Amino acid sequence: MRTYYCGDLRNSNIGETVTLYGWVDRRRDHGGVVFLDVRDRAGIIQIVSDPERTPDSYPQAESIRNEYVIKVTGRVSQRPEDSLNPNLPTGDVEVYADAIEVLNAVRKQLPFQISSEEADTVRENIRLKYRYLDLRRDRLNKNLHLRHQVVKAIRRFLEDEENFAEVETPILTRSTPEGARDYLVPSRVNPGQWFALPQSPQLFKQLLMVSGFDRYYQIARCFRDEDLRADRQPEFTQLDMEMSFLSEDEIIDLNERLVCHIFKQVKGIELSRPFPRLTYNEAMAKYGTDRPDTRFGLELVNVSDIVQDSGFKVFSGAVKSGGLVKVLPIPGGNEQISNVQIKTGGDLFKEAAAAGAKGLAYVRVREGMEIDTIGAIKDNLTEEQKAELLRRTGAKPGHLLLFGAGDTITVNKSLDRVRQVLGEELNLIDETAINLLWVTEFPMFEWNPDEKRLESLHHPFTAPNSEDLDDIKTARARAYDLVYNGIEIGGGSLRIYQRDIQEKVFAAIGLSLEKAEEKFGFLLEAFDFGTPPHGGIAYGLDRLVMLLAGEDSIRDVIAFPKTQQASCLLTEAPGTVDEKQLKELYVASTYDSEME
Amino acid sequence: MRTYYCGDLRNSNIGETVTLYGWVDRRRDHGGVVFLDVRDRAGIIQIVSDPERTPDSYPQAESIRNEYVIKVTGRVSQRPEDSLNPNLPTGDVEVYADAIEVLNAVRKQLPFQISSEEADTVRENIRLKYRYLDLRRDRLNKNLHLRHQVVKAIRRFLEDEENFAEVETPILTRSTPEGARDYLVPSRVNPGQWFALPQSPQLFKQLLMVSGFDRYYQIARCFRDEDLRADRQPEFTQLDMEMSFLSEDEIIDLNERLVCHIFKQVKGIELSRPFPRLTYNEAMAKYGTDRPDTRFGLELVNVSDIVQDSGFKVFSGAVKSGGLVKVLPIPGGNEQISNVQIKTGGDLFKEAAAAGAKGLAYVRVREGMEIDTIGAIKDNLTEEQKAELLRRTGAKPGHLLLFGAGDTITVNKSLDRVRQVLGEELNLIDETAINLLWVTEFPMFEWNPDEKRLESLHHPFTAPNSEDLDDIKTARARAYDLVYNGIEIGGGSLRIYQRDIQEKVFAAIGLSLEKAEEKFGFLLEAFDFGTPPHGGIAYGLDRLVMLLAGEDSIRDVIAFPKTQQASCLLTEAPGTVDEKQLKELYVASTYDSEME
Repeated sequence: MRTYYCGDLRNSNIGETVTLYGWVDRRRDHGGVVFLDVRDRAGIIQIVSDPERTPDSYPQAESIRNEYVIKVTGRVSQRPEDSLNPNLPTGDVEVYADAIEVLNAVRKQLPFQISSEEADTVRENIRLKYRYLDLRRDRLNKNLHLRHQVVKAIRRFLEDEENFAEVETPILTRSTPEGARDYLVPSRVNPGQWFALPQSPQLFKQLLMVSGFDRYYQIARCFRDEDLRADRQPEFTQLDMEMSFLSEDEIIDLNERLVCHIFKQVKGIELSRPFPRLTYNEAMAKYGTDRPDTRFGLELVNVSDIVQDSGFKVFSGAVKSGGLVKVLPIPGGNEQISNVQIKTGGDLFKEAAAAGAKGLAYVRVREGMEIDTIGAIKDNLTEEQKAELLRRTGAKPGHLLLFGAGDTITVNKSLDRVRQVLGEELNLIDETAINLLWVTEFPMFEWNPDEKRLESLHHPFTAPNSEDLDDIKTARARAYDLVYNGIEIGGGSLRIYQRDIQEKVFAAIGLSLEKAEEKFGFLLEAFDFGTPPHGGIAYGLDRLVMLLAGEDSIRDVIAFPKTQQASCLLTEAPGTVDEKQLKELYVASTYDSEME
Repeated sequence: MRTYYCGDLRNSNIGETVTLYGWVDRRRDHGGVVFLDVRDRAGIIQIVSDPERTPDSYPQAESIRNEYVIKVTGRVSQRPEDSLNPNLPTGDVEVYADAIEVLNAVRKQLPFQISSEEADTVRENIRLKYRYLDLRRDRLNKNLHLRHQVVKAIRRFLEDEENFAEVETPILTRSTPEGARDYLVPSRVNPGQWFALPQSPQLFKQLLMVSGFDRYYQIARCFRDEDLRADRQPEFTQLDMEMSFLSEDEIIDLNERLVCHIFKQVKGIELSRPFPRLTYNEAMAKYGTDRPDTRFGLELVNVSDIVQDSGFKVFSGAVKSGGLVKVLPIPGGNEQISNVQIKTGGDLFKEAAAAGAKGLAYVRVREGMEIDTIGAIKDNLTEEQKAELLRRTGAKPGHLLLFGAGDTITVNKSLDRVRQVLGEELNLIDETAINLLWVTEFPMFEWNPDEKRLESLHHPFTAPNSEDLDDIKTARARAYDLVYNGIEIGGGSLRIYQRDIQEKVFAAIGLSLEKAEEKFGFLLEAFDFGTPPHGGIAYGLDRLVMLLAGEDSIRDVIAFPKTQQASCLLTEAPGTVDEKQLKELYVASTYDSEME
C-alpha cells in the first residue's frame, strides 16, 4: 500500500522506507546510474537505481520508459550537495529503489511528451483527442485541483457560515426559450413531446423559495445551444444561489464575504470590503460598458454639450439625432500613438469600426496646450469650445484625445474596445491587481431592433425598483452584476414575487397573458400561495476558475471540454446512433448530408 | 433583518426582542386573542397578539390567514404553565407581536392544507402538481435537509479524510447503449448527429485514473430511459468514486469507513466494522438472491443430493435436468402457515408462481418428528432420506419445510420471494436493525436468453479474478455490491486496465473487435499509454437517502421528481415545442397521434 505521495517527500522522511506509485515523468541514464522522475498527483520525486547499491531494481529500472506506471519501494536519502534541486519541493531528497514493479507499460508512441513544456505548443485538437494524457500535465492537473478547491471553499462558506442547503434541480425539464436556444430531448414515454435541458435552474430555485427553503445553493450544470465563442461551452457550470427575506444590500454583502473567502482559501489573498459599486449609468458614462476593467484609468468624458452647436457636422449631427460625443483622453498618447493607428486601416480604427463606428476623430495636445487636429475640427470650434474641451477632459501637454460621435450604443461600444486595447498596448494594466466591483441599477429592458420589442436585460423575473413602477418600461431593475478585472463573473437580482408585477413585465416584453400562462402558469399560480420576497445570484464557475488559474480559455479548467464546434474529440460525441434508437423515440433526422 | 429562525427560539431567548420571517402554519382565535403558529425551515413558533397587550399588531393579526408570509417583531416570553407544549422544541416560549407585516397573502384556495397531517393522504398527483406547497410540509422539508446532510457528510469524509478530488464529467456525451436505453439530444451544430445523456460517468472516471487523478468522486446526475418502476426515475443521482492503486480489500475498507461516517453524522448511529461479506455463491445458496435481507433468518438449504434418487419425479427430475431442490425451513411455520396459503391460489403460492415456480411442495414436522405431507412425497422417500432431510434442515417439531424444485434460477427466485413475504408476515424483521453486507465474487457474465449471448452482470469494464483467466466465460469478477437491509445501495469493481483482457471480455459478450473499436476505441487506446490498476464504486444516492429517511419512494427524497410516466406535473415537462426549434435541429417527430 502507498505510504506517501511522490510529491510529498521531504527532508523529514530521510531514512524511511517508502512505497510509491506513479508515472515515469522522465528517465535519465548517467554513467550506469538510472534516474527516474516519478510523478503522481502531488508532484515529482527522483528515484535512483544502480547496479551496486540497488542491484535488485536495476535491471527493471533500465527497461523502463517514459509514462510507464510503476510501484517503487525504497529508502529516502539526502541528495548529494551538488544535485540538490531547489526548483522541486522534493528536491532535497531522492529514493533508492529496492524494488520496482511495472504496473503497466506504454506500448505506442506518445502523441506528445507529458513532461516537456513543448506540450503547451501542441495543437489543441491533439490535446483534446488525448485529453487523458493532457490532464497528466502539471498545468492542467493544477487547474482541475484549483477548481476543486474553489468549489470546496464555496460549499464550506455557504454551508458552515451561512446556513445554505444544497438542493438538486432537474436536468430533464421544460423548454422555455428566452434568449438562447434550448437543447431538446425527445420523450419516448410521451411521444411527440420533448424535454429541454435547463439554461439555468432559475424557475426551480424560485419555487424552492416559495417552499420555504430560504437559502438554497447548487453547483448546477446549465446548457445553451449557442453559436460558440471562445469562452463558451454547450454545457457549463454555475454556482447558483437564492435567498428569501434579504435586501439587495444584504445579498451583496453576503456575496462579498463569499468572494473574499474564496480568494483567501484558494489564493491566500485578503481582499478588502466593501467592493466598489457603480450604477449602470455611471459605468456606461465612464467606461462605455457595464463590465468595466478598472485596473487602469482612461475614463471617457461626455462632451456633447460643448460641441453640439459646433460647425463640425459629425459632432453636432450626432447630438442632434439623439446620440452623443465622447472623448477618450490618453495621457502621453501624443507620443505613443501614431496617426497611422488611428486612421482608416490602423489597429485602433479597426477596433472602433468593428463596433460600428465610422472612424475616430482626434486631437493632439502639444506643448503650451496648442492643439493639433484636422482642419474640420479646428476650424469649426470656437476658442471657448476648445478651452472647455481641454478643461473638461483634463488634457495636459502630450495628451491624445480620441473622439467617438454617433448613436450612444455605437459610441460606447467603440470607445470601450479602443480603451481596452490601449490598456494592453500602453501597459497600463497591473497584472497582479484584482479589481472587483458591482454594477447596479441596470435598466429592466433593452430594445431588440430585430424583433422590434423590448426584451429583459437580465431575465423577466427580475424585480423593478419599487420607485419606478409608474413606467415599468423605463424602470431600473434591482439587478447587480459582479465584475472581476473587466469580466462579468456573477449576476443576480431581487425577483418579482407579486403576480401583478410579473404580468406587467411579461406584457412589457410582448408576452401575452395567454402565452405567459402557458409557459409560466405554475409560477404565476405560486405567487398566489404565499411567495416570500426573494433574490439570488449565479456565478459562471468555469470563468471564475479560469481567472483564478490565470488561463485564457475555460477549456483549460474543464476536465472534458468540447471544441468550438461543440464536439468532444476524445469520445467523438455527438455521433450517429442506431435507427432503432430513433424509431423508439418517434423521431427522425431531417438532415440530408448531400444537400450541403 | 431576521434575528432568529422561528424554530430555534428557546428559554434562553426570553426577554429578547426578535424579528422573524415565515409562513402562518395555523391561525387560532381564542376569546379575542390571536395565536399564529409561524413556520420557517427550522420549525414553528407561537406568536400571540391581543388588543390589550399588543394593540399595534392586533388588527393585522386578525386579518391573517393560513400560509400568509409575514414578518413579525416581538418579545420572547415564557409560556404560561398550562400552555407549555412539550411536543414542540419551541414549546416553552411564545412571542408577543409588537408588529406584524404581511409580505404576501394567499389569494386562492389552497389545494391542500400544509399544516395538517391529512396532506399525507392527498393524492400524489396533486402533491406533485403543487410540489412547492408539498415541500413546505415538515416531512418533505426534513427529507430534503436530510439529503443535504448525507451529501455533506460524504463530501467531508472523502475530501478531509481521504484526499478525494471532485471532478465534473460531461452530461452531453456519446451514446454507448449497454443495457438501458439512452436519452438522446440532437446536435444543431453537427446535424444528423446526437449526443446522449450519460447512464453513468463510468468511462470518464476511468480516463481520469489514466490521467493520474488517483482519487476521484462526484455527486453525478445519471439518466436511463427505462420503463419506470416504483423506485426508478429518468434522472437519478449517484455518488460516483474511482481510485487507483488500491486492492479490492482496501476499497471495501475505505467504503465501510465512509458508510459508518454517514450513519454517525446523519443518524448518530455507530455501526460496527468490518461489515459481513458473502460471496455471490454463498448468498444465492442461503438466500436465493444476491441482495439478501439478513435482518431475519429463514436460510435456504440445498437438499438435491438427498432427493435426487427418490421416486418423487418433481424432485429427482429437477436434479437430473441440471436444476436443484431447496428447502426453506420455517420454525413454528406449522402453526402459523395454513395449507390454503401454500396451495394453488394462496398468497405464498402466488409469490412463488410470480417467479415462475409451478407450486410449493411442503412438509410439516409434528410432535415426535412425525412428518405430515402429501402421499407422493411421503411414499417416495426412504426412512433414511426423511431422517437426513430433517437433520440437514435443522427441523424441529413445529417446523414447516417449503420446497422449491426446478431450474436453479426459478427455485432461487421463488424461494427468495416467499422468504421475504414470510419475513414481513411472521414479523421476523427488527425494523430498527441496520444490516449492511458485501456481496463479492460475482460471475463475470450471465446468459441473456433473448439475445442468446452472454452479457456482463455488472458492466464490461469489470476485471475478472486473475485466478480465473483460463476460461473468462466462467470467471469470477472482482466486483462487490453493498446491500442495506436487502436493498442494493452500491456496486463497484476493480476495472480492467489491460487491453488484451478488455478485448477478451468484449469478445465474450459478442462485441466484435471492430464494434469495440468503434464504440470504445479511445478507452482501448488509453490502455496503451500507461493505465494504472484502478477500481471504484457507485452508490444510488436517492435510494440511500430514502432508506435513511424511512421513506418507501425515492420521489419523497427528490425535490422535483417525475411521475412513473416520466413527466413533471408541476412544469408539465415534457411538452410540445415550436416547429422552428425542431427545424433548427434538423429533426422531426414521426409520431402520429391519430394512430393510437
